[in-house]
Amino acid sequence: MIHHVNPHANVAQVLDNLDAIRVLDPHGMLDLTERFPDQCRDALQISRDFLAAQGAPARPSSIIITGLGGSAIGGDLVRALVEIGGDVPVIVNRDYRLPGFAGPNTLVIASSYSGNTEETVSAYEHARDLGCPRICITSGGELARHAARDGVPCCIVPGGRPPRASTGYLFIPTLAVVAASVDLGAQCGLNAVDASLGHLDELAAEWRRENPVSDNPAKELAVALHGRIPIFYGAQGWTSVLALRWKGQFNENAKVHAFANALPEQNHNEILGWTRASQQSSIWSVVYLRDPQETEDQPRIARRIAVLQAVIASSAEQHEVWATGDSLMERLLGTLYYGDFVSVYAALLAGVDPTDIAGIDLLKGEMANLNGNGR
Amino acid sequence: MIHHVNPHANVAQVLDNLDAIRVLDPHGMLDLTERFPDQCRDALQISRDFLAAQGAPARPSSIIITGLGGSAIGGDLVRALVEIGGDVPVIVNRDYRLPGFAGPNTLVIASSYSGNTEETVSAYEHARDLGCPRICITSGGELARHAARDGVPCCIVPGGRPPRASTGYLFIPTLAVVAASVDLGAQCGLNAVDASLGHLDELAAEWRRENPVSDNPAKELAVALHGRIPIFYGAQGWTSVLALRWKGQFNENAKVHAFANALPEQNHNEILGWTRASQQSSIWSVVYLRDPQETEDQPRIARRIAVLQAVIASSAEQHEVWATGDSLMERLLGTLYYGDFVSVYAALLAGVDPTDIAGIDLLKGEMANLNGNGR
Repeated sequence: MIHHVNPHANVAQVLDNLDAIRVLDPHGMLDLTERFPDQCRDALQISRDFLAAQGAPARPSSIIITGLGGSAIGGDLVRALVEIGGDVPVIVNRDYRLPGFAGPNTLVIASSYSGNTEETVSAYEHARDLGCPRICITSGGELARHAARDGVPCCIVPGGRPPRASTGYLFIPTLAVVAASVDLGAQCGLNAVDASLGHLDELAAEWRRENPVSDNPAKELAVALHGRIPIFYGAQGWTSVLALRWKGQFNENAKVHAFANALPEQNHNEILGWTRASQQSSIWSVVYLRDPQETEDQPRIARRIAVLQAVIASSAEQHEVWATGDSLMERLLGTLYYGDFVSVYAALLAGVDPTDIAGIDLLKGEMANLNGNGR
Repeated sequence: MIHHVNPHANVAQVLDNLDAIRVLDPHGMLDLTERFPDQCRDALQISRDFLAAQGAPARPSSIIITGLGGSAIGGDLVRALVEIGGDVPVIVNRDYRLPGFAGPNTLVIASSYSGNTEETVSAYEHARDLGCPRICITSGGELARHAARDGVPCCIVPGGRPPRASTGYLFIPTLAVVAASVDLGAQCGLNAVDASLGHLDELAAEWRRENPVSDNPAKELAVALHGRIPIFYGAQGWTSVLALRWKGQFNENAKVHAFANALPEQNHNEILGWTRASQQSSIWSVVYLRDPQETEDQPRIARRIAVLQAVIASSAEQHEVWATGDSLMERLLGTLYYGDFVSVYAALLAGVDPTDIAGIDLLKGEMANLNGNGR
């Protein structure tokens, strides 16, 4: 990691002031974040109960996971895992309609935390029109009602949280359904999630609010990124999906712009944006999401990152986040979790309520006004 | 479109000075851009000859297009067209290896303009190991040699250009191969490309260097974006793929940072980055790539753009690019072409050689050094 003198020492004190945190986080996003390992435990039990009651879906020739935001990212992570160990094409759909190949052999997993995401409800109806086997994952809403009407299996998870603080409830049941219909191998299934929970507990203890900045890597990285525009880079595969997740968490929690890309694709175009970046903006920070396995599995990716860091060195601060844990699933869930903590601390540093999403609520209101007498 | 007083009136004069352009563009990127319609004509003939000699490939159960940069974007455009009218899953692969489902029923199209993109050559070899039927599209290099060794059909296109100035040679043969193996419908096949060439000629005449800024929308948009960081937004489907292409063209030609996203996904996270954007940077510009059909086909997307524009209004300049042409293919190729012109003019305005890609060449050199006695 490239270290810099910290210009935000005073600002950082707020993160060690528990009273200040209570004021800055009136809706308790940090509390939800701290309790993520328990959410994963609960989601695991719900997923196992759901599969025990429904049985495994028939083996499809392809799978479409349809959702937006946190549901889509959960789908992307499952897709990345299937690309490692599975033998069916998986496509994540972020639109009102499904791609043209969807049909009776396509398993469609419709995921919406509230159940009222209009794009996902619309895509669900498209799947019904096309005769696709369907499974819904939701806390209720319109999607749960449609599933009940159609006799479609629906995995119901507890509601009431912001969707981005419900990743356990969105990712784990999706993985469970896919792992039950396609052989993913031991490192990608529910038992791997189960075996990762102890690691998540350890990380929660390390990153929680009681641990001061001086001994808390999540607070430390939030301080380093304060006032800057972060760009998250991962390698093609699960770290690039997590780069997108970190971007979304900084957008939604800290209300700052953030961007993400994947290597090697970045090396074929975006790298040239850095050659004149110092003339454009002095407030970029680059965060590399790295897997210790990559040096062994993808030595050329590791080399690409080293060269990229040399190109960027004079234009921006750079940080590295190394996944921790013995198993693939520990590294994946731990790196996801780190982004949640860092983005919440970044919000608190900026004096922004991490839970508030007025911009999205405005948009949803305007979209609802369009409906008139119903869509 | 939101109009602003132009602070770059003096700078803009360089775009109307043909002698200055010759100095600023020593390797002739603008010339290549102006001749894009002829490249498409040539690519169409090459594609038809290739198909006539090879016959149509057997119908696959899935298709993987593997490539990086301009080849990957060409693949994404084909994927977007197949999602409209085709009935097979198409996945674009930007990595050294193929996803786990690839096998004897997966048609793998390996596309590398030079033939020496190491990720694409590696993915080709992975496809061979997996027993996938393969087709190569290249001007030569290692990929052509591998294809000849293996008796794999190889569509050879003329070499010697920068890959990003070879989109006709990369996109059209890929589309031809896919359209020959899957029924895409008349609006997405080679005849649709053929019928679009006249429209491209008209656009080339409108945007060419002889037309002054006052009468040239491509120069006008380049002037508006001068000194700014553009963010390109499209709707899920082909306009979002083109947003990525515009981003890449600004990275590679103008050597500036640029970013891209798709609606509706943008509405679920990135929109919140705009709520504090005016404190972060005063040099953003947003460019919306729009299809006149969207108001009819996707009225809710059109509404989402209107609300998004209201959210962004106080933080950034905003521009709209409306696709022109009667057919889907005219609108797609025309909008792609517009991005090429605007990004080249943007490079000339910034005093940057559009052809030069020292950053990528440095990286390729470092990667080659790694090879030692061969990879």
